Amino acid sequence: VNPDLASERQTASFSVEKLTALLDGGAEQTRIRRGVVEAIESDPIFSRENQYFQTQNERYEAAVRKAVYLQKKMHDMGWTENGPEYKYIYRALSGDVAFLLHRVFMRSISVLGSDKQIAKWIPLATQHKLIGSYAQTELGHGTYLQGLETTAVFDTATQEFILNTPKISAMKWWPGDMGRSATHTVVFAQLYVHGKCYGIHPFIVQIRSLQDHSLCPGITAGDIGPKMNFEHIDNGYLLLKNVRIPGENMLSKFCEVRPDGTYVRQGSQKINYFTMTTVRISVLSDEVLTPLMKACTIAIRYSVVRRQSKLKPGEQEAKILDYQTQQEKLLPQLATAYAFHFINKYLEQLFSKGYREIQRKNFDMLPELHALSSGFKAMITQHCTAGVEICLRACGGHGYSLLSGLPSLYTKILASCIYEGENTILLLQTARFLIKCFMAASAGQPVPPSVTYLAAVKHGKCPAKNKLDFLSPDIYTEAYQHVAVRLMSSTAAKLQDLIQSGVKKHDAWNQCTVQLVQAAKAHCHYIAVKNFAETVEKLETKAGIQKIMKHLCDLFALHGIFSNTGVFLHDGYTSAAQMDMVTASYLDLLAVIRKDAVPLVDAFDFTDKSLNSALGSYDGQVYQRLYEWAQKSPTNQMSPAYERYLKPLLHNTLSKL
Amino acid sequence: VNPDLASERQTASFSVEKLTALLDGGAEQTRIRRGVVEAIESDPIFSRENQYFQTQNERYEAAVRKAVYLQKKMHDMGWTENGPEYKYIYRALSGDVAFLLHRVFMRSISVLGSDKQIAKWIPLATQHKLIGSYAQTELGHGTYLQGLETTAVFDTATQEFILNTPKISAMKWWPGDMGRSATHTVVFAQLYVHGKCYGIHPFIVQIRSLQDHSLCPGITAGDIGPKMNFEHIDNGYLLLKNVRIPGENMLSKFCEVRPDGTYVRQGSQKINYFTMTTVRISVLSDEVLTPLMKACTIAIRYSVVRRQSKLKPGEQEAKILDYQTQQEKLLPQLATAYAFHFINKYLEQLFSKGYREIQRKNFDMLPELHALSSGFKAMITQHCTAGVEICLRACGGHGYSLLSGLPSLYTKILASCIYEGENTILLLQTARFLIKCFMAASAGQPVPPSVTYLAAVKHGKCPAKNKLDFLSPDIYTEAYQHVAVRLMSSTAAKLQDLIQSGVKKHDAWNQCTVQLVQAAKAHCHYIAVKNFAETVEKLETKAGIQKIMKHLCDLFALHGIFSNTGVFLHDGYTSAAQMDMVTASYLDLLAVIRKDAVPLVDAFDFTDKSLNSALGSYDGQVYQRLYEWAQKSPTNQMSPAYERYLKPLLHNTLSKL
Repeated sequence: VNPDLASERQTASFSVEKLTALLDGGAEQTRIRRGVVEAIESDPIFSRENQYFQTQNERYEAAVRKAVYLQKKMHDMGWTENGPEYKYIYRALSGDVAFLLHRVFMRSISVLGSDKQIAKWIPLATQHKLIGSYAQTELGHGTYLQGLETTAVFDTATQEFILNTPKISAMKWWPGDMGRSATHTVVFAQLYVHGKCYGIHPFIVQIRSLQDHSLCPGITAGDIGPKMNFEHIDNGYLLLKNVRIPGENMLSKFCEVRPDGTYVRQGSQKINYFTMTTVRISVLSDEVLTPLMKACTIAIRYSVVRRQSKLKPGEQEAKILDYQTQQEKLLPQLATAYAFHFINKYLEQLFSKGYREIQRKNFDMLPELHALSSGFKAMITQHCTAGVEICLRACGGHGYSLLSGLPSLYTKILASCIYEGENTILLLQTARFLIKCFMAASAGQPVPPSVTYLAAVKHGKCPAKNKLDFLSPDIYTEAYQHVAVRLMSSTAAKLQDLIQSGVKKHDAWNQCTVQLVQAAKAHCHYIAVKNFAETVEKLETKAGIQKIMKHLCDLFALHGIFSNTGVFLHDGYTSAAQMDMVTASYLDLLAVIRKDAVPLVDAFDFTDKSLNSALGSYDGQVYQRLYEWAQKSPTNQMSPAYERYLKPLLHNTLSKL
Repeated sequence: VNPDLASERQTASFSVEKLTALLDGGAEQTRIRRGVVEAIESDPIFSRENQYFQTQNERYEAAVRKAVYLQKKMHDMGWTENGPEYKYIYRALSGDVAFLLHRVFMRSISVLGSDKQIAKWIPLATQHKLIGSYAQTELGHGTYLQGLETTAVFDTATQEFILNTPKISAMKWWPGDMGRSATHTVVFAQLYVHGKCYGIHPFIVQIRSLQDHSLCPGITAGDIGPKMNFEHIDNGYLLLKNVRIPGENMLSKFCEVRPDGTYVRQGSQKINYFTMTTVRISVLSDEVLTPLMKACTIAIRYSVVRRQSKLKPGEQEAKILDYQTQQEKLLPQLATAYAFHFINKYLEQLFSKGYREIQRKNFDMLPELHALSSGFKAMITQHCTAGVEICLRACGGHGYSLLSGLPSLYTKILASCIYEGENTILLLQTARFLIKCFMAASAGQPVPPSVTYLAAVKHGKCPAKNKLDFLSPDIYTEAYQHVAVRLMSSTAAKLQDLIQSGVKKHDAWNQCTVQLVQAAKAHCHYIAVKNFAETVEKLETKAGIQKIMKHLCDLFALHGIFSNTGVFLHDGYTSAAQMDMVTASYLDLLAVIRKDAVPLVDAFDFTDKSLNSALGSYDGQVYQRLYEWAQKSPTNQMSPAYERYLKPLLHNTLSKL
């Protein structure tokens, strides 16, 4: 181990192993997780070592190979889909595996299909007698589902649906696993019966032969080409031309077309709606938080190994983490990773509770859960993406090498701001809920628990008297609450004013959207700070964990104020003198947390193989690793460029060209 | 042309062609530029159409091919290095060409070499009898040049220098064109004579044979492997083991080692120092501004073609540029592109003037020019990189496809935040200059022109009385000035207080660096706003150009206030009520500029080939282009994955694995 890194570990103020267990949800979970990681990483089939050298085609092939081999591995290890190991497999593979949409295919049948459909298709899918996908997004249509253009016309004569993508913009575009792998997909299309449109419905469509994988009649499909990341996934396109499918292939738990063409709606779709909402929360852990934690691990370990310039004259060059500016880049990201880990745990619990209520036909929590999942998906993906980028840049030139692992983390996490609902649209959905609740609260009506604070508008001023007061969770949580209420109330007032002045409702809404987005963000930020503070309070006081988590909670809160001083200063709730105290406390905290920075990333417990980074390894041997790894690059094989171009140039025989 | 795009052009409030000429510096320059673009783009050798499908090896080979062929092309076209066409060639190639470091090699010899050295090496390089590179950065050492570890020991017996990279961290790392192409390079090494170290000096070292391109004795060199972009460049590594070079190979304009080992320093290095400073400004136009302009063109054209969701019930889906949130993402980037175009022109003129003064041995302007080039390089690269990312995200899923062109623009421009001086370090250099000037100004001493405002600290309050007042350049420029002075003065006070309280000077400096960076940014932001306002004032009042530029200037200024409200509110210079006026004016401006958004990007005058984007073409045929282009992707060729993995899975014959 590099001595500069080793020395950082000797002074940890807390037990790293205990913090790891806390993050995992108990020592037993840590043990199970490590077992899965060890089994996956010791198997060369799952190696990611060559990943940064591979073409899109090679990445795809490796991901398919891993997905197929994983079936065997699970069998050999005795892992099942309901076992405690299952949730760690994807993380251990760093998501570098195919057939993720196969699972979405299965879930959509389970949720939207009739009992008969489930009985027919789920066993086929479980046994991999087909490979499924999920075809919703179109070339010209994303978030606004009502705008989808693919059609499914019921033909009473043959009892079939006839599917078409009538225009190029109607082509299905983006579905994963569909470009090259899938044999079947669930297609969302506008249902027409007797010339009448009944809106969007799901249909199971076979697209490739189960015998030789050739495209089925009427199907045009392929891969949409290179993307910023996800090279391992065959995101695809799909054109349908008079594709006939049996009438029984419309997923019919909630709606049915009878043989005579009668359309029947049955049951409540609310559970389905809720399922879609929960997906937003379920992706956060593996796809969003883990990348930020990895980026922090890489950048912080590198920052105590890299020495640059002198902090004190006459001494050796300083570790770059000893510079205040470097601390100010990285340590807030570390605090953010912890803050979001805890809010994510909170949301997961809330959604489990919501699920139980909904199964008991109590749908009261639905609007609140929808607003929370939208707002937090947007906030967490936004902050984590920005955080990974900051970590990348903070590593200078070496961060820019793919071998650092940081570019791939960034280009992948960036997609999370777009998929499962584009962030701006999600924040506006949260804002719509908040406006409604604010109005209700103002009128004295009851509102859901997470927004009761909107009713209790306190005017007053921040009571802090010195910089230490800003290390009091009550002080800063209340400041966040105040800002959230103020932004919501001022935007609601603007909206009302516009409408009363004669602006049409939808125009007025549009003219308030920039501020509505701000208000929705402030709401989520407040809840995240409050939740972190409450979590810290409940932690065991032993092993130093509560103390360091308290520091991180303070840093998370004060970083948010320091980065958005305007909203806190605006109405004088926080004075300029108090803002200077915030700055002082914030900068003081950086120096405090810096001492534990390496133990705090060690606690994330990533193996070297899972980081796949020349800068982030546990032993800190950065330069050897970069050099040895670079030598293996295909760019170090002989290039034909010399014979073809350089030699004629240097030998002055350019006429060959 | 897509009718949704065509309609945007019919209502332009100004002459697009006249604005293009203004940006180019006159209609004649536009004509010359278009000639170069036409000649390059009509030649299939320079095509970039397959770029997004190519491997790093293919990109490198294509770039070498283009560089070699360019010699012929220039000859055929009658273009010379001193001709008016020359500066447009690189832009027309979108930088996708090799041997850029060959030019740096030549410039370093011209600037650092003796007359004899220039006479020997420059003709060889000009005629491409060698390929040069420039080896400064090491694996363990970047910005802090004194820390470089490569050594050059003078051997009086043989009159040679013996070069070594004594440790792995001393290995040269990153030099472009060096990994696979270069035959020679300028190596920066610590000079030792008779055991005494004289610091960093430049040496010409041959690294590959001119006959067969094999590595010279003692040389280990290769490619550093995959990066986030720059796949076409062979950034390289270089190990030197007892490499002997003739004594005459030390570049000796400023320093010389006599045969007996006497070290002689001669002349002033200040011109050299200035040359390095100007490089920071010279990269901005092609490497930083052009990418932002391209990203704006792509995202804004796409945003009037893409329709999503309904703005008004009953109407067709709305163009996404009609949503306030989309305007608030894109239009400030457009204003930024124009603001930076004008500040860049201003800086180029200032540096030309500086160059003339320096040649007359007047070095007075040097510190100011150094501070300006550092601060603006950091500010412009930072804002443009963020702007390109915003454009990418604003295009949703399609922005994430490489075929949009946006991911490549982003991953390339990101490097500009790191190369030619890491931004945080540069801002601290600017801050050091500002602190010095602030102290001098406070003591009544004269200071350079760009910082005289620091002396004239005005307290007072912002005089704006209604939202229209914030469309007055005097009002907002003064607000920016006030903030810049306040941040500088408060940070200077903190620094003084710390030192007076006994904190050592370097520790005190480090404890102020987060705030020093803020102050340096505020200084540059103020100058950029002031310069934009002054430029608008001087524009011709005809053809509507002044009017639309005034709107953009206002937007640039108000966006900066809206995004940093805290620093304007802090000391009460701007009141909360005034900040609400800023917000109102800012949001109003978005709706005004939105009407001219497409003409404003058309004026950048990018051809479809130079944009290389399925989303940004002049005709707006987004969906056709995406579909046709995707079909050409290598991922649409037959994959062996089916036979190898999918077939055994589907046919249940997994035992083959």
